[in-house]
Amino acid sequence: MSSVICQLSVSLDGFVAGRDQSLEEPLGVDGERLHDWAFAGDAGPTRDADIAARHGEGVGAYIMGRNMFGPPDRESDPSWRGWWGEDPPYHVPVFVITHHPREPVPMEGGTVFHFVTDGIESALVQAREAAGSENVQISGGASTAQQYLKAGLVDELYLHVAPIVLGGGERLWDGLEGIRFEPYEVVPSPAVTHIRYRVLR
Amino acid sequence: MSSVICQLSVSLDGFVAGRDQSLEEPLGVDGERLHDWAFAGDAGPTRDADIAARHGEGVGAYIMGRNMFGPPDRESDPSWRGWWGEDPPYHVPVFVITHHPREPVPMEGGTVFHFVTDGIESALVQAREAAGSENVQISGGASTAQQYLKAGLVDELYLHVAPIVLGGGERLWDGLEGIRFEPYEVVPSPAVTHIRYRVLR
Repeated sequence: MSSVICQLSVSLDGFVAGRDQSLEEPLGVDGERLHDWAFAGDAGPTRDADIAARHGEGVGAYIMGRNMFGPPDRESDPSWRGWWGEDPPYHVPVFVITHHPREPVPMEGGTVFHFVTDGIESALVQAREAAGSENVQISGGASTAQQYLKAGLVDELYLHVAPIVLGGGERLWDGLEGIRFEPYEVVPSPAVTHIRYRVLR
Repeated sequence: MSSVICQLSVSLDGFVAGRDQSLEEPLGVDGERLHDWAFAGDAGPTRDADIAARHGEGVGAYIMGRNMFGPPDRESDPSWRGWWGEDPPYHVPVFVITHHPREPVPMEGGTVFHFVTDGIESALVQAREAAGSENVQISGGASTAQQYLKAGLVDELYLHVAPIVLGGGERLWDGLEGIRFEPYEVVPSPAVTHIRYRVLR
Protein backbone atom coordinates (compact mmCIF):
# COMPACT_ATOMS: atom_id res chain seq x y z
CA MET A 1 0.00 0.00 0.00
CA SER A 2 1.23 3.46 -0.73
CA SER A 3 2.46 5.59 2.15
CA VAL A 4 2.77 9.23 3.06
CA ILE A 5 6.42 9.88 3.86
CA CYS A 6 7.83 13.09 5.23
CA GLN A 7 11.51 13.29 4.30
CA LEU A 8 13.73 16.04 5.72
CA SER A 9 17.34 16.88 6.47
CA VAL A 10 17.59 18.26 9.98
CA SER A 11 20.33 19.62 12.25
CA LEU A 12 21.10 18.12 15.66
CA ASP A 13 19.17 20.99 17.20
CA GLY A 14 16.14 20.30 15.03
CA PHE A 15 16.27 22.94 12.31
CA VAL A 16 15.39 22.19 8.68
CA ALA A 17 16.65 25.60 7.53
CA GLY A 18 18.95 28.19 9.05
CA ARG A 19 18.34 31.77 10.15
CA ASP A 20 17.50 34.64 7.75
CA GLN A 21 16.15 32.82 4.70
CA SER A 22 16.42 35.04 1.61
CA LEU A 23 16.46 34.98 -2.18
CA GLU A 24 20.23 34.52 -2.04
CA GLU A 25 20.12 31.94 0.76
CA PRO A 26 16.79 30.10 0.49
CA LEU A 27 17.91 27.65 3.19
CA GLY A 28 19.10 30.43 5.49
CA VAL A 29 22.52 30.89 7.05
CA ASP A 30 24.41 27.58 6.94
CA GLY A 31 21.23 25.78 5.89
CA GLU A 32 22.91 24.31 2.82
CA ARG A 33 25.19 22.36 5.13
CA LEU A 34 22.16 20.24 6.06
CA HIS A 35 22.29 18.82 2.55
CA ASP A 36 26.04 18.43 2.13
CA TRP A 37 25.68 14.68 2.62
CA ALA A 38 23.59 14.39 -0.55
CA PHE A 39 26.37 15.82 -2.70
CA ALA A 40 29.28 13.99 -1.09
CA GLY A 41 28.91 11.34 -3.81
CA ASP A 42 30.41 13.77 -6.31
CA ALA A 43 33.69 12.43 -4.93
CA GLY A 44 32.76 8.78 -5.51
CA PRO A 45 30.19 6.20 -4.40
CA THR A 46 29.21 6.23 -0.72
CA ARG A 47 26.23 5.06 1.27
CA ASP A 48 25.06 8.67 1.41
CA ALA A 49 25.34 9.06 -2.36
CA ASP A 50 23.34 5.87 -2.77
CA ILE A 51 20.60 7.18 -0.48
CA ALA A 52 20.59 10.54 -2.27
CA ALA A 53 20.29 8.80 -5.64
CA ARG A 54 17.25 6.87 -4.40
CA HIS A 55 15.53 10.08 -3.19
CA GLY A 56 12.58 9.85 -5.58
CA GLU A 57 12.31 6.05 -5.70
CA GLY A 58 8.70 4.96 -5.35
CA VAL A 59 7.46 8.54 -5.05
CA GLY A 60 4.52 9.35 -7.32
CA ALA A 61 3.87 12.90 -6.09
CA TYR A 62 5.38 15.51 -3.78
CA ILE A 63 3.84 18.06 -1.45
CA MET A 64 5.67 21.19 -0.32
CA GLY A 65 4.99 24.48 1.41
CA ARG A 66 5.04 27.64 -0.67
CA ASN A 67 8.47 28.75 0.61
CA MET A 68 9.95 25.68 -1.04
CA PHE A 69 8.56 26.92 -4.35
CA GLY A 70 9.51 30.57 -4.07
CA PRO A 71 9.94 33.65 -1.90
CA PRO A 72 6.70 35.31 -0.66
CA ASP A 73 6.76 38.15 -3.19
CA ARG A 74 7.51 35.96 -6.22
CA GLU A 75 5.35 32.87 -5.93
CA SER A 76 2.51 34.21 -8.10
CA ASP A 77 4.83 36.02 -10.53
CA PRO A 78 4.56 34.14 -13.85
CA SER A 79 8.28 34.61 -14.47
CA TRP A 80 9.09 32.73 -11.25
CA ARG A 81 9.37 29.00 -11.96
CA GLY A 82 10.70 27.74 -8.62
CA TRP A 83 14.06 27.50 -6.91
CA TRP A 84 14.94 24.36 -8.81
CA GLY A 85 15.91 25.36 -12.34
CA GLU A 86 14.17 24.25 -15.53
CA ASP A 87 14.53 20.52 -14.74
CA PRO A 88 13.66 20.18 -11.04
CA PRO A 89 14.70 16.99 -9.22
CA TYR A 90 11.11 15.71 -8.86
CA HIS A 91 10.00 14.37 -12.28
CA VAL A 92 6.40 13.87 -11.07
CA PRO A 93 3.59 16.22 -9.97
CA VAL A 94 4.44 18.54 -7.07
CA PHE A 95 1.61 20.07 -5.03
CA VAL A 96 2.49 23.47 -3.55
CA ILE A 97 0.35 24.61 -0.60
CA THR A 98 -0.27 28.32 -0.96
CA HIS A 99 -2.83 31.14 -0.68
CA HIS A 100 -2.20 32.30 -4.25
CA PRO A 101 -4.05 30.51 -7.05
CA ARG A 102 -1.94 29.92 -10.14
CA GLU A 103 -2.20 27.73 -13.22
CA PRO A 104 -0.02 24.58 -13.14
CA VAL A 105 3.58 25.16 -14.22
CA PRO A 106 4.99 22.28 -16.31
CA MET A 107 8.77 21.95 -16.21
CA GLU A 108 11.26 19.80 -18.04
CA GLY A 109 11.76 16.19 -16.97
CA GLY A 110 8.17 15.52 -15.87
CA THR A 111 7.86 17.87 -12.91
CA VAL A 112 4.60 19.85 -12.88
CA PHE A 113 3.98 22.36 -10.08
CA HIS A 114 0.32 22.47 -9.01
CA PHE A 115 -0.91 25.17 -6.63
CA VAL A 116 -3.38 24.14 -3.95
CA THR A 117 -5.27 26.90 -2.11
CA ASP A 118 -7.79 24.86 -0.10
CA GLY A 119 -5.58 23.28 2.51
CA ILE A 120 -3.40 20.35 3.39
CA GLU A 121 -6.07 17.67 3.20
CA SER A 122 -7.04 18.71 -0.31
CA ALA A 123 -3.37 18.72 -1.32
CA LEU A 124 -3.03 15.17 0.01
CA VAL A 125 -6.12 13.94 -1.83
CA GLN A 126 -4.78 15.40 -5.08
CA ALA A 127 -1.27 14.06 -4.47
CA ARG A 128 -2.57 10.57 -3.67
CA GLU A 129 -4.61 10.56 -6.84
CA ALA A 130 -1.61 11.67 -8.89
CA ALA A 131 0.66 9.12 -7.20
CA GLY A 132 -1.62 6.14 -7.84
CA SER A 133 0.01 3.12 -6.21
CA GLU A 134 3.20 5.04 -5.41
CA ASN A 135 4.05 7.00 -2.28
CA VAL A 136 3.39 10.65 -1.55
CA GLN A 137 6.38 12.52 -0.18
CA ILE A 138 6.12 15.64 1.96
CA SER A 139 9.34 17.57 1.43
CA GLY A 140 8.89 20.44 3.89
CA GLY A 141 9.35 23.02 5.12
CA ALA A 142 8.93 22.68 8.84
CA SER A 143 5.47 24.23 9.00
CA THR A 144 4.09 21.95 6.29
CA ALA A 145 5.62 18.88 7.93
CA GLN A 146 4.17 19.92 11.30
CA GLN A 147 0.69 20.41 9.90
CA TYR A 148 0.64 16.95 8.33
CA LEU A 149 2.14 15.28 11.41
CA LYS A 150 -0.35 17.01 13.74
CA ALA A 151 -3.24 16.00 11.51
CA GLY A 152 -2.13 12.34 11.77
CA LEU A 153 -1.66 12.10 8.01
CA VAL A 154 1.97 10.91 7.93
CA ASP A 155 2.98 7.24 7.97
CA GLU A 156 6.72 7.70 8.09
CA LEU A 157 9.20 10.42 9.06
CA TYR A 158 12.49 9.91 7.25
CA LEU A 159 15.20 12.09 8.75
CA HIS A 160 18.74 12.77 7.66
CA VAL A 161 20.32 14.07 10.86
CA ALA A 162 23.31 16.27 10.00
CA PRO A 163 25.90 16.55 12.80
CA ILE A 164 25.76 20.33 12.96
CA VAL A 165 24.16 22.82 15.34
CA LEU A 166 22.48 25.75 13.56
CA GLY A 167 21.27 27.61 16.66
CA GLY A 168 18.27 29.13 14.89
CA GLY A 169 16.02 28.95 11.85
CA GLU A 170 13.02 26.83 10.97
CA ARG A 171 12.47 24.34 13.77
CA LEU A 172 10.90 21.00 12.94
CA TRP A 173 9.67 19.81 16.33
CA ASP A 174 7.43 22.67 17.49
CA GLY A 175 3.94 21.55 18.46
CA LEU A 176 4.57 17.84 17.96
CA GLU A 177 4.41 16.83 21.64
CA GLY A 178 2.64 13.56 22.22
CA ILE A 179 3.26 12.08 18.79
CA ARG A 180 5.06 8.75 19.17
CA PHE A 181 7.68 7.63 16.71
CA GLU A 182 9.41 4.28 16.26
CA PRO A 183 12.81 4.16 14.56
CA TYR A 184 12.82 1.11 12.31
CA GLU A 185 15.76 1.64 9.97
CA VAL A 186 19.00 3.44 10.72
CA VAL A 187 21.82 3.92 8.22
CA PRO A 188 24.92 5.58 9.65
CA SER A 189 27.69 7.45 7.88
CA PRO A 190 30.29 9.95 9.10
CA ALA A 191 28.37 12.74 7.33
CA VAL A 192 24.82 12.14 8.54
CA THR A 193 22.58 9.62 10.29
CA HIS A 194 19.62 8.42 8.24
CA ILE A 195 16.71 7.34 10.44
CA ARG A 196 13.31 6.10 9.31
CA TYR A 197 10.61 6.54 11.96
CA ARG A 198 7.17 5.00 11.83
CA VAL A 199 4.61 7.51 13.08
CA LEU A 200 2.48 5.60 15.59
CA ARG A 201 -1.23 6.31 15.83
CA MET B 1 44.38 7.28 26.35
CA SER B 2 41.54 8.20 28.60
CA SER B 3 38.72 10.33 27.19
CA VAL B 4 36.14 12.79 28.40
CA ILE B 5 32.75 11.47 27.36
CA CYS B 6 29.48 13.30 27.73
CA GLN B 7 26.67 10.73 27.83
CA LEU B 8 23.04 11.83 27.73
CA SER B 9 19.57 10.61 26.85
CA VAL B 10 17.84 13.22 24.73
CA SER B 11 14.45 13.66 23.09
CA LEU B 12 14.00 14.20 19.35
CA ASP B 13 13.53 17.90 20.08
CA GLY B 14 16.74 18.08 22.07
CA PHE B 15 15.63 18.04 25.72
CA VAL B 16 17.51 16.10 28.40
CA ALA B 17 14.75 16.73 30.96
CA GLY B 18 11.09 17.74 30.69
CA ARG B 19 9.26 20.83 31.91
CA ASP B 20 8.70 21.66 35.61
CA GLN B 21 11.45 19.71 37.36
CA SER B 22 10.58 19.15 41.03
CA LEU B 23 11.32 17.00 44.04
CA GLU B 24 8.62 14.59 42.88
CA GLU B 25 9.66 14.68 39.23
CA PRO B 26 13.40 15.41 39.10
CA LEU B 27 13.43 14.79 35.35
CA GLY B 28 10.38 17.01 34.77
CA VAL B 29 7.14 16.13 33.08
CA ASP B 30 7.62 13.02 30.94
CA GLY B 31 11.40 13.24 31.44
CA GLU B 32 11.57 9.70 32.76
CA ARG B 33 10.47 8.47 29.34
CA LEU B 34 13.91 9.52 28.06
CA HIS B 35 15.36 6.67 30.08
CA ASP B 36 12.72 3.99 29.43
CA TRP B 37 15.13 2.26 27.04
CA ALA B 38 17.58 1.59 29.87
CA PHE B 39 15.00 -0.39 31.83
CA ALA B 40 13.47 -2.30 28.95
CA GLY B 41 15.87 -5.14 29.76
CA ASP B 42 13.79 -5.97 32.82
CA ALA B 43 11.72 -7.94 30.30
CA GLY B 44 14.73 -9.85 28.96
CA PRO B 45 18.02 -9.25 27.15
CA THR B 46 18.02 -6.63 24.39
CA ARG B 47 20.65 -4.48 22.74
CA ASP B 48 19.40 -1.57 24.84
CA ALA B 49 19.73 -3.57 28.05
CA ASP B 50 23.25 -4.52 27.05
CA ILE B 51 24.15 -0.86 26.46
CA ALA B 52 22.54 0.14 29.76
CA ALA B 53 24.48 -2.58 31.60
CA ARG B 54 27.74 -1.24 30.17
CA HIS B 55 26.96 2.33 31.31
CA GLY B 56 29.87 2.62 33.71
CA GLU B 57 32.34 0.46 31.77
CA GLY B 58 35.74 2.13 31.63
CA VAL B 59 34.53 5.14 33.61
CA GLY B 60 36.80 6.09 36.50
CA ALA B 61 34.98 9.24 37.60
CA TYR B 62 31.79 11.17 36.85
CA ILE B 63 31.02 14.87 36.70
CA MET B 64 27.51 16.26 37.15
CA GLY B 65 25.74 19.55 37.70
CA ARG B 66 24.27 20.24 41.12
CA ASN B 67 20.68 19.58 39.98
CA MET B 68 21.67 15.99 39.32
CA PHE B 69 22.69 15.68 42.98
CA GLY B 70 19.75 17.44 44.56
CA PRO B 71 17.14 20.20 44.44
CA PRO B 72 18.44 23.77 45.03
CA ASP B 73 17.25 23.99 48.64
CA ARG B 74 18.56 20.60 49.69
CA GLU B 75 22.03 20.21 48.22
CA SER B 76 23.88 21.47 51.30
CA ASP B 77 21.50 19.82 53.78
CA PRO B 78 23.49 17.02 55.49
CA SER B 79 20.44 14.78 55.46
CA TRP B 80 20.27 14.98 51.64
CA ARG B 81 22.40 12.24 50.10
CA GLY B 82 21.41 12.57 46.43
CA TRP B 83 18.57 11.39 44.24
CA TRP B 84 20.13 7.97 43.86
CA GLY B 85 19.51 6.03 47.06
CA GLU B 86 22.18 4.62 49.39
CA ASP B 87 23.93 2.66 46.60
CA PRO B 88 24.06 5.03 43.61
CA PRO B 89 24.74 3.56 40.17
CA TYR B 90 28.24 5.11 39.90
CA HIS B 91 30.59 3.08 42.15
CA VAL B 92 33.44 5.58 41.64
CA PRO B 93 34.02 9.23 42.64
CA VAL B 94 31.40 11.69 41.40
CA PHE B 95 32.29 15.39 41.17
CA VAL B 96 29.30 17.68 41.67
CA ILE B 97 29.70 21.25 40.37
CA THR B 98 28.06 23.61 42.84
CA HIS B 99 28.34 26.92 44.72
CA HIS B 100 27.88 25.26 48.10
CA PRO B 101 30.96 23.73 49.75
CA ARG B 102 30.31 20.43 51.49
CA GLU B 103 32.44 17.60 52.82
CA PRO B 104 32.57 14.50 50.57
CA VAL B 105 29.63 12.13 51.00
CA PRO B 106 30.65 8.45 50.82
CA MET B 107 27.88 6.10 49.78
CA GLU B 108 27.57 2.34 49.55
CA GLY B 109 29.10 0.53 46.59
CA GLY B 110 32.06 2.83 46.09
CA THR B 111 30.32 6.05 45.05
CA VAL B 112 31.69 9.16 46.78
CA PHE B 113 30.12 12.54 46.04
CA HIS B 114 32.69 15.35 45.98
CA PHE B 115 31.58 18.98 45.81
CA VAL B 116 33.57 21.32 43.57
CA THR B 117 33.04 25.06 44.01
CA ASP B 118 35.80 26.48 41.80
CA GLY B 119 34.47 25.69 38.34
CA ILE B 120 34.31 23.16 35.56
CA GLU B 121 38.04 23.05 34.79
CA SER B 122 38.89 22.30 38.40
CA ALA B 123 36.23 19.57 38.47
CA LEU B 124 37.78 18.02 35.37
CA VAL B 125 41.30 18.11 36.82
CA GLN B 126 40.06 16.37 39.96
CA ALA B 127 37.97 13.86 38.01
CA ARG B 128 40.88 13.01 35.69
CA GLU B 129 43.13 12.45 38.69
CA ALA B 130 40.55 10.21 40.33
CA ALA B 131 39.93 8.31 37.08
CA GLY B 132 43.59 7.53 36.43
CA SER B 133 43.80 5.70 33.11
CA GLU B 134 40.01 5.38 32.86
CA ASN B 135 37.55 7.78 31.23
CA VAL B 136 35.76 10.72 32.79
CA GLN B 137 32.05 10.82 32.09
CA ILE B 138 29.96 13.99 32.13
CA SER B 139 26.43 12.94 32.97
CA GLY B 140 24.56 16.26 32.67
CA GLY B 141 22.45 18.21 32.99
CA ALA B 142 22.21 20.30 29.88
CA SER B 143 23.97 23.33 31.33
CA THR B 144 26.95 21.31 32.55
CA ALA B 145 27.23 19.50 29.21
CA GLN B 146 27.07 22.83 27.35
CA GLN B 147 29.78 24.40 29.48
CA TYR B 148 32.20 21.53 28.85
CA LEU B 149 31.38 21.36 25.13
CA LYS B 150 31.81 25.13 24.70
CA ALA B 151 35.13 24.99 26.55
CA GLY B 152 36.38 22.34 24.10
CA LEU B 153 36.90 19.83 26.91
CA VAL B 154 34.78 16.96 25.56
CA ASP B 155 36.16 14.21 23.29
CA GLU B 156 32.93 12.35 22.68
CA LEU B 157 29.22 13.04 22.87
CA TYR B 158 27.31 9.79 23.37
CA LEU B 159 23.61 10.32 22.81
CA HIS B 160 20.66 8.03 23.34
CA VAL B 161 17.99 9.63 21.14
CA ALA B 162 14.55 8.69 22.45
CA PRO B 163 11.79 8.88 19.80
CA ILE B 164 9.62 11.27 21.80
CA VAL B 165 8.92 14.99 21.58
CA LEU B 166 8.86 16.72 24.99
CA GLY B 167 8.09 20.24 23.75
CA GLY B 168 9.89 21.93 26.64
CA GLY B 169 12.37 21.46 29.45
CA GLU B 170 16.15 21.51 29.61
CA ARG B 171 17.48 21.91 26.09
CA LEU B 172 20.84 20.40 25.22
CA TRP B 173 21.81 22.31 22.09
CA ASP B 174 21.63 25.95 23.20
CA GLY B 175 24.83 27.90 22.51
CA LEU B 176 26.62 25.05 20.73
CA GLU B 177 26.60 26.60 17.24
CA GLY B 178 29.78 26.02 15.33
CA ILE B 179 30.87 22.88 17.15
CA ARG B 180 31.35 20.08 14.64
CA PHE B 181 30.47 16.51 15.45
CA GLU B 182 31.17 13.27 13.62
CA PRO B 183 28.95 10.27 14.23
CA TYR B 184 31.20 7.21 14.36
CA GLU B 185 29.08 4.49 15.93
CA VAL B 186 25.33 4.06 15.66
CA VAL B 187 23.36 1.29 17.36
CA PRO B 188 19.67 1.24 16.49
CA SER B 189 16.75 -0.26 18.38
CA PRO B 190 13.01 0.34 18.24
CA ALA B 191 13.22 2.16 21.61
CA VAL B 192 16.08 4.55 21.03
CA THR B 193 18.97 5.36 18.68
CA HIS B 194 22.42 5.25 20.29
CA ILE B 195 24.87 7.56 18.50
CA ARG B 196 28.50 8.20 19.44
CA TYR B 197 29.80 11.52 18.10
CA ARG B 198 33.43 12.56 18.07
CA VAL B 199 33.68 16.24 18.97
CA LEU B 200 35.95 17.75 16.33
CA ARG B 201 38.38 20.48 17.28
